[in-house]
Amino acid sequence: MGILRDDGVVYEPVNEVDLGPNSDQVYLHADVKAPRMAGLLAKVFVWFLEMKIIGNILLYFLKKNNRIQKLVSYAVLEESPLYVPLHPYEDFEEEEEVKSLNRGLSPTEQVQQAVDCLRSSDIILQDSNFNFRRWTILDYSRAYASRKITPLMVAERLISAIIQSSGPEMDMSFFISYDSQDILRQATESTLRYQKGEAISVLDGVPIAVKDEIDCMPYPTTGGSKWLHKVRPCKEDAFCVKRLRACGAILVGKTNMHELGAGTSGINPHYGVSRNPYDPTRISGGSSSGSAAVVCAGLCPVALGVDGGGSVRMPAALCGVIGLKPSFGRTPDSGVLPLNWTVGMVGVLAGTVEDSLIVYAAISGEDQSHQPVPRLHLPKLNPSNMSTIKMAKSNEWFNDCSDDIRACCLRALTSLHKLYGWETVEVTLPDIEAMRLAHYVTIGSECTASIAHHLEKMGKSESGWDARVALSIYGSFNSRDYLNAQRIRNRQMRIHEKIFSMADVIVSPMVGVTAYEIKNDVQETGELDYVNGAALVRYSIAGNFLGLPAVTVPVGYDSLGLPIGIQFIGKPWSEAKLIQIAYAMEALCKGENKKPKVFYDLLTPK
Amino acid sequence: MGILRDDGVVYEPVNEVDLGPNSDQVYLHADVKAPRMAGLLAKVFVWFLEMKIIGNILLYFLKKNNRIQKLVSYAVLEESPLYVPLHPYEDFEEEEEVKSLNRGLSPTEQVQQAVDCLRSSDIILQDSNFNFRRWTILDYSRAYASRKITPLMVAERLISAIIQSSGPEMDMSFFISYDSQDILRQATESTLRYQKGEAISVLDGVPIAVKDEIDCMPYPTTGGSKWLHKVRPCKEDAFCVKRLRACGAILVGKTNMHELGAGTSGINPHYGVSRNPYDPTRISGGSSSGSAAVVCAGLCPVALGVDGGGSVRMPAALCGVIGLKPSFGRTPDSGVLPLNWTVGMVGVLAGTVEDSLIVYAAISGEDQSHQPVPRLHLPKLNPSNMSTIKMAKSNEWFNDCSDDIRACCLRALTSLHKLYGWETVEVTLPDIEAMRLAHYVTIGSECTASIAHHLEKMGKSESGWDARVALSIYGSFNSRDYLNAQRIRNRQMRIHEKIFSMADVIVSPMVGVTAYEIKNDVQETGELDYVNGAALVRYSIAGNFLGLPAVTVPVGYDSLGLPIGIQFIGKPWSEAKLIQIAYAMEALCKGENKKPKVFYDLLTPK
Repeated sequence: MGILRDDGVVYEPVNEVDLGPNSDQVYLHADVKAPRMAGLLAKVFVWFLEMKIIGNILLYFLKKNNRIQKLVSYAVLEESPLYVPLHPYEDFEEEEEVKSLNRGLSPTEQVQQAVDCLRSSDIILQDSNFNFRRWTILDYSRAYASRKITPLMVAERLISAIIQSSGPEMDMSFFISYDSQDILRQATESTLRYQKGEAISVLDGVPIAVKDEIDCMPYPTTGGSKWLHKVRPCKEDAFCVKRLRACGAILVGKTNMHELGAGTSGINPHYGVSRNPYDPTRISGGSSSGSAAVVCAGLCPVALGVDGGGSVRMPAALCGVIGLKPSFGRTPDSGVLPLNWTVGMVGVLAGTVEDSLIVYAAISGEDQSHQPVPRLHLPKLNPSNMSTIKMAKSNEWFNDCSDDIRACCLRALTSLHKLYGWETVEVTLPDIEAMRLAHYVTIGSECTASIAHHLEKMGKSESGWDARVALSIYGSFNSRDYLNAQRIRNRQMRIHEKIFSMADVIVSPMVGVTAYEIKNDVQETGELDYVNGAALVRYSIAGNFLGLPAVTVPVGYDSLGLPIGIQFIGKPWSEAKLIQIAYAMEALCKGENKKPKVFYDLLTPK
Repeated sequence: MGILRDDGVVYEPVNEVDLGPNSDQVYLHADVKAPRMAGLLAKVFVWFLEMKIIGNILLYFLKKNNRIQKLVSYAVLEESPLYVPLHPYEDFEEEEEVKSLNRGLSPTEQVQQAVDCLRSSDIILQDSNFNFRRWTILDYSRAYASRKITPLMVAERLISAIIQSSGPEMDMSFFISYDSQDILRQATESTLRYQKGEAISVLDGVPIAVKDEIDCMPYPTTGGSKWLHKVRPCKEDAFCVKRLRACGAILVGKTNMHELGAGTSGINPHYGVSRNPYDPTRISGGSSSGSAAVVCAGLCPVALGVDGGGSVRMPAALCGVIGLKPSFGRTPDSGVLPLNWTVGMVGVLAGTVEDSLIVYAAISGEDQSHQPVPRLHLPKLNPSNMSTIKMAKSNEWFNDCSDDIRACCLRALTSLHKLYGWETVEVTLPDIEAMRLAHYVTIGSECTASIAHHLEKMGKSESGWDARVALSIYGSFNSRDYLNAQRIRNRQMRIHEKIFSMADVIVSPMVGVTAYEIKNDVQETGELDYVNGAALVRYSIAGNFLGLPAVTVPVGYDSLGLPIGIQFIGKPWSEAKLIQIAYAMEALCKGENKKPKVFYDLLTPK
């Protein structure tokens, strides 16, 4: 950070910032002064906040307390704004470990290419070192092909699992909507295909759930709200859903999410709190809460989420599954709710890295309206064949998490050093907190510009209390806040480019805290907990604000048995390498996997 | 325009908008309710405006009156934001009429290529049909080469002309700063080169003035203010100035401009009102007021300006000279005051089209930080050899100007039809007024984000009264205003793409009014005249907001003898064709050129 003046920070030119381990850059811990609020307190707060003058005064102090003014609005820096983190590229050559696909392949062709990348690694994944493991796409595909079980049988088990887990006793709130008839219809068709020996791809008959921020027929797209689907009807599948359907996957319904993606807990006052299968008294994280939870609980090997501020990776980490956010622009966003324009991306939640690869291959592509992106690259998964990876690690940032998380992630790093000979490069990543706030200004401003006219039409009263607070804050930013946030984006891009000249990936924990408790007062109003919120998003922002690909891999559990995830952030368009890295990491941790308290086995023949 | 609701306009999808001549789109005339203000009234207004609460209330009503809320902030539209109008391109092939230059040529090489493009047209330009004509770059170059006159003699005449025109009697206020010693030094060096037969290029020894928004050693860059150069010292030539200097041009000083480019009149309370050489009781227009005036008055064949909202083209039209604004990104903006990031471009003011071509060739290039742009294309100037041009004309918009302007521009169109057989395509360009307001929100927001921290440091009192009003309004936009403005940018881009599928260029008058009178009360406070301001910028905005190249050519005079300009707006990166068109237009009007009341002949041997 530069010179902290009374009014705003003066950021040093990037070339003068020491990014080495002994840098004098001051690491700012999140300094959230807002108290936790829920229940009546939240209601009163909203009541004040939505008053014209008092509300504005409140917002003024809220912003000030959160340092947005000093670190963003009044900041002095030389960079011009960078509005869209779509990285330029030169189409790179096929490497030994990476397969470069031709453009315009069909989803099934791309899936087959991904499956070919797994062949060499079958042995590793099939071995019995797993203490616990979820069924994979290939497990489903092989089981169906061998006729030991049919997609229809899986669908029936799935529906009964959904019914059971949704009941008052378990109240897991995984889904916002599902349609048994639609699931059974798809499963019947898939079963017929297997009977005829005409399975479309390895995804044929595999249940996949979709976050309720992504259009998927025949369901409304609520975005976790009570009103958005009324003003924006879902008319066709989103791009990514079309591609999965083309592969024969069974789209099983729309998963629960934090209302409008405007929070990280996954506590939704309208559709219930997505509970964590490892401990149903705790959150699953958000905003793709349901997608993480259903994968965790074995209901689907894979689910789709949307990651605008860690929303795929955070719940994945809290639920002990893989969360993959591709580079900005990798998959067209048509059919995804326009809750923002420059930070969100469809991402994949999966039980295993190989499944995240298969679905990543399935959904990646280009549409007409799309900006040009590089050809798709897929990694050949074989950890023993990998070159040495250099991992950039910024100590103060890395360590800004709970003791259990820190110890567990450090242990994971040590095993990467020992078993693969990978190297850690000590660096300093400056102004992470400023980037978090700049991202918040950005996503808030874009959300407002996108949906405010709907909100005004519907009245705010249809929204949950915590969403109303978020929307009030979102609507309070001026154009200077927004533009300076984009200048900080440019500055951070240049800083990260420098870091990537020293290392292949950046490594960090995925979140600062493990799944925390669902308090009694949150059911009606949701919860405002900016302290836990800041701890959850602490490591997420570069993936969104800078459009970088990132992946989280479960690497252990805290003292309460709650999952812990590590994160790798890659160079632009380096998904192939990132998936290789995740695969290597996963291979080292598979022996320690624990079974969640809530888990359904849909595949074992009975 | 779409449905005008109580709150905001609902814009129809672009594909449903009829862009034909009989469209039902309603043409909105500018509806400015703010009264003209200057002198004491302006001071009182600023006093209120800068009060915290009353100021905000005032701003609320100002914005509302100007329809910004209905047409921009609360607008409902489907487009996502388009932040930067940098057009994609495929490098096009060399055509018969257009020369495609290799990348990385030196400025002198590019200038020579441009001169080669003129050869065939020498006869036309040398002929005696001109009633009045200004000396061209080639005139200077030939005179120097023939030793009839030297750069030093021209420099001496220039200096005495500046001194005379700056004196209390004439008070033309062309320049903010000039340095006789620096001019004479450059002229001496150039004279020596000619003596040795080592002239660098046709620009060697040619006097060129630079708007005081562009860095040019040894001068401070004031931006027309009293303070900006104090907080942002000029350390080296801007990219474009470096290239002119490399060609041997004599940089003669920094021209007057509207303070911070925040107005269109060129009335500057600190450095005086740039007077119009055709009638010194009238404005020269802005913001590149001095650059237009010095070219008009014969002090330089060419001057540089910056065009963020018509700021090159408007004063060019009011002063009867050529104004060329290239595509966004054609010339790097390094060394140009960052008063905005997404609408401004260095442009060329010149006495003739051929001179605008030469200087356009000189300053075009790429620097390290630059986004990739197409290779430079130069037109072979020969109107008799041109293919038929289709000119899109939107009638209600075209006609929204004074009777004299309308008649004169229509006459020019008729002669293009008759003499070249060019065609007019009747179209409807919808939502021009909305685009003007969206551009205003954009340039204002970006100006604020860029300079507000300086302003806060300096105190507002160093700024002129009219600039203080502009800055107050600029600072009042929220992020929703800004983002919706960018969505309107995207929508207009798509509309213009459709227009360009029907025609080669869009044709319009350049401004809605000719040069208006300088009132007595403006000297101290500047002037707030949003009615005339809206009339001046009416035809400028697509060039800036959509990054399109545009050129204005003088085509006649109104009943008071004040110049009138026509405008051609081109497809992205179509400067070569645009210059051809301008050249053809100029050829038809050259017989009617009138000499300004204030004019200096620097070249005729005495």
